[in-house]
Amino acid sequence: MTKLVLISRDYDMSHLVPSILRAAPELDVAVHGSRDAADADVAVCWNPPEGAVAALPKLRLVHSIAAGVDNILCDPSLPRVPLCRVVDPQHARGMSEFVTWGVLHFHRQIDRVMENQRNGVWLRYDQQAPSTCSVGVMGLGEIGSRVAGDLHRLGFAVRGWARRAKDLAGIETFAGAQGLEPFLRGTDILVCLLPLTDETRAILGARTLAMLPRGAKLIHVGRGEHLVPCALLSALKEERLTGAIVDVFPNEPLPASDPFWSAPNMIVTPHMASVASSDTIGMQVAQNVRRLVNGEPLLNVIDVARGY
Amino acid sequence: MTKLVLISRDYDMSHLVPSILRAAPELDVAVHGSRDAADADVAVCWNPPEGAVAALPKLRLVHSIAAGVDNILCDPSLPRVPLCRVVDPQHARGMSEFVTWGVLHFHRQIDRVMENQRNGVWLRYDQQAPSTCSVGVMGLGEIGSRVAGDLHRLGFAVRGWARRAKDLAGIETFAGAQGLEPFLRGTDILVCLLPLTDETRAILGARTLAMLPRGAKLIHVGRGEHLVPCALLSALKEERLTGAIVDVFPNEPLPASDPFWSAPNMIVTPHMASVASSDTIGMQVAQNVRRLVNGEPLLNVIDVARGY
Ligand SMILES: NC(=O)c1ccc[n+]([C@@H]2O[C@H](COP(=O)([O-])OP(=O)(O)OC[C@H]3O[C@@H](n4cnc5c(N)ncnc54)[C@H](OP(=O)(O)O)[C@@H]3O)[C@@H](O)[C@H]2O)c1
Ligand SMILES: NC(=O)c1ccc[n+]([C@@H]2O[C@H](COP(=O)([O-])OP(=O)(O)OC[C@H]3O[C@@H](n4cnc5c(N)ncnc54)[C@H](OP(=O)(O)O)[C@@H]3O)[C@@H](O)[C@H]2O)c1
Repeated sequence: MTKLVLISRDYDMSHLVPSILRAAPELDVAVHGSRDAADADVAVCWNPPEGAVAALPKLRLVHSIAAGVDNILCDPSLPRVPLCRVVDPQHARGMSEFVTWGVLHFHRQIDRVMENQRNGVWLRYDQQAPSTCSVGVMGLGEIGSRVAGDLHRLGFAVRGWARRAKDLAGIETFAGAQGLEPFLRGTDILVCLLPLTDETRAILGARTLAMLPRGAKLIHVGRGEHLVPCALLSALKEERLTGAIVDVFPNEPLPASDPFWSAPNMIVTPHMASVASSDTIGMQVAQNVRRLVNGEPLLNVIDVARGY
Repeated sequence: MTKLVLISRDYDMSHLVPSILRAAPELDVAVHGSRDAADADVAVCWNPPEGAVAALPKLRLVHSIAAGVDNILCDPSLPRVPLCRVVDPQHARGMSEFVTWGVLHFHRQIDRVMENQRNGVWLRYDQQAPSTCSVGVMGLGEIGSRVAGDLHRLGFAVRGWARRAKDLAGIETFAGAQGLEPFLRGTDILVCLLPLTDETRAILGARTLAMLPRGAKLIHVGRGEHLVPCALLSALKEERLTGAIVDVFPNEPLPASDPFWSAPNMIVTPHMASVASSDTIGMQVAQNVRRLVNGEPLLNVIDVARGY
């Protein structure tokens, strides 16, 4: 019987057990730490403790429960077995809802209107066509390409940036390190949907933010470690950036004393932009375990050298 | 030469003159009150003073600069010449942006997240599929039907209410007075996009709000006089409604002392949901004046007996 073990340092994954067993009743699902978990064939992980995965001698597959795998790859002892992630079409839809909300919030100047409400001020601003607003999406993968397409359909001027050149209908794309500056120079609202890798760590720092036009906005829904907190705080204080919606932080949950909570024109959201449902996680994990058992090609395999 | 006069009690319409003349340089555009305006053929109006339109003996057409004409029809002395309005496709798009923002704000619980931010609280709520959220659109005309279709495409469970039965793909519709209660009973987020008529005045009162499920939300983007302010204030205070975005009020601009500014879970926006551009107004007015001169059928004619 194929055995799975759920491993996390800080997240109670027990709610996933029924979803996995509904999708594949033939599996044996154990809890990390219990004696009979030691001979597991598959590790299902979110933020596993360092060395926990390497301690499984029979391991043949590591499966993330999320789209991002930085929380698994950061373990230097990770064994060289395939690593897969969850790619939930609903996940991209949820992210698109969140980013659409954020883009409309800025584009329709709801931030200023809400500030006016606090002061009892009735003031109507000019209404601009969405085609006058350029939204720049960093990362054009499963999620970023869906978000970019949805914003394009709403009439925004959408541009995107990825490692490799892309051909997306109606979207101007830029590639690689030399494409970053021209991409940023023409971006009014920057959306970060990159995975966390060695190349993208701290990418939202002083240099990047300084390339945006004065008055630009940021919607950061990638990973906390993309962000250099002091760079964003200065940009907001000096009004080089006039708005930020940030969903992910280097230290989550954000401590009550963190200056981000009350930074000017900043909306803090609690890593909520998009969460895959338990049933989707259960189904995709089960499907890949069956493929493993049957010797079929796995789905959504991570390129470990590339980091995503 | 055909003469137009711009008439408003409280709105400076002079910025429309260049737009009208660009579209129809052959016209003569006069300002209301000047002596040579007295023989105007066409009155272009927003909130005209009572009797001002009736005082034009040569008048053959009254043209609104907006989608709603309640501000013109309320003059009992209005002469019996055709009344037309502006129907701007961009107008429906602008409204759809605003309502989409509002629906996502409620559906993704941004209201609670922003409240948490004020208290430095990091709390992630369950994420629900949009299909579990029922949005009810009152008024399925040019604007309401577009808004309903766009929300349906985002995956929301959309229902609509109009005077006559409608057939809109994917949208459950209800008609007339007897359709109102079943429509409201199943609505989580109510969007008002009705015109103001004798039948719809004060429709957002205690009786209507009480038919909504407990915890429902309101997005009111119709006209101020649809709303009974004290009914909405009580519903919010008693948490029968847990959120409201209100863009239009019986008295605009909303006075600084109005209790709406600080009502619980209420967002006040300054009649900004959608404004037609000057160029569209100019083009549509010019087009209808040419049709009038050439004896062709007019576009977007109001059924005065019906009131919209
Ligand atoms: N906040 C939340 O709730 C939440 C939820 C889900 C996901 N996320 C974040 O969203 C990220 C993206 O997810 P996904 O499924 O779309 O990932 P994905 O399919 O792996 O796509 C990653 C994209 O980033 C680009 N990229 C990677 N490294 C790059 C670099 N150095 N320079 C430029 N572009 C680079 C890739 O370019 P190529 O196409 O050229 O390879 C690709 O387009 C996740 O990794 C996670 O960080 C956040
Ligand atoms: N806040 C803003 O910035 C803003 C901007 C633009 C417009 N608006 C508002 O939006 C309204 C709608 O504009 P529109 O262009 O969509 O108007 P429209 O094309 O005239 O459509 C009106 C709709 O309301 C329905 N209706 C009218 N009386 C009704 C009643 N007694 N019971 C049930 N349904 C009734 C009509 O039903 P039938 O289809 O059965 O006739 C029709 O579907 C305007 O009148 C204005 O109040 C607000």
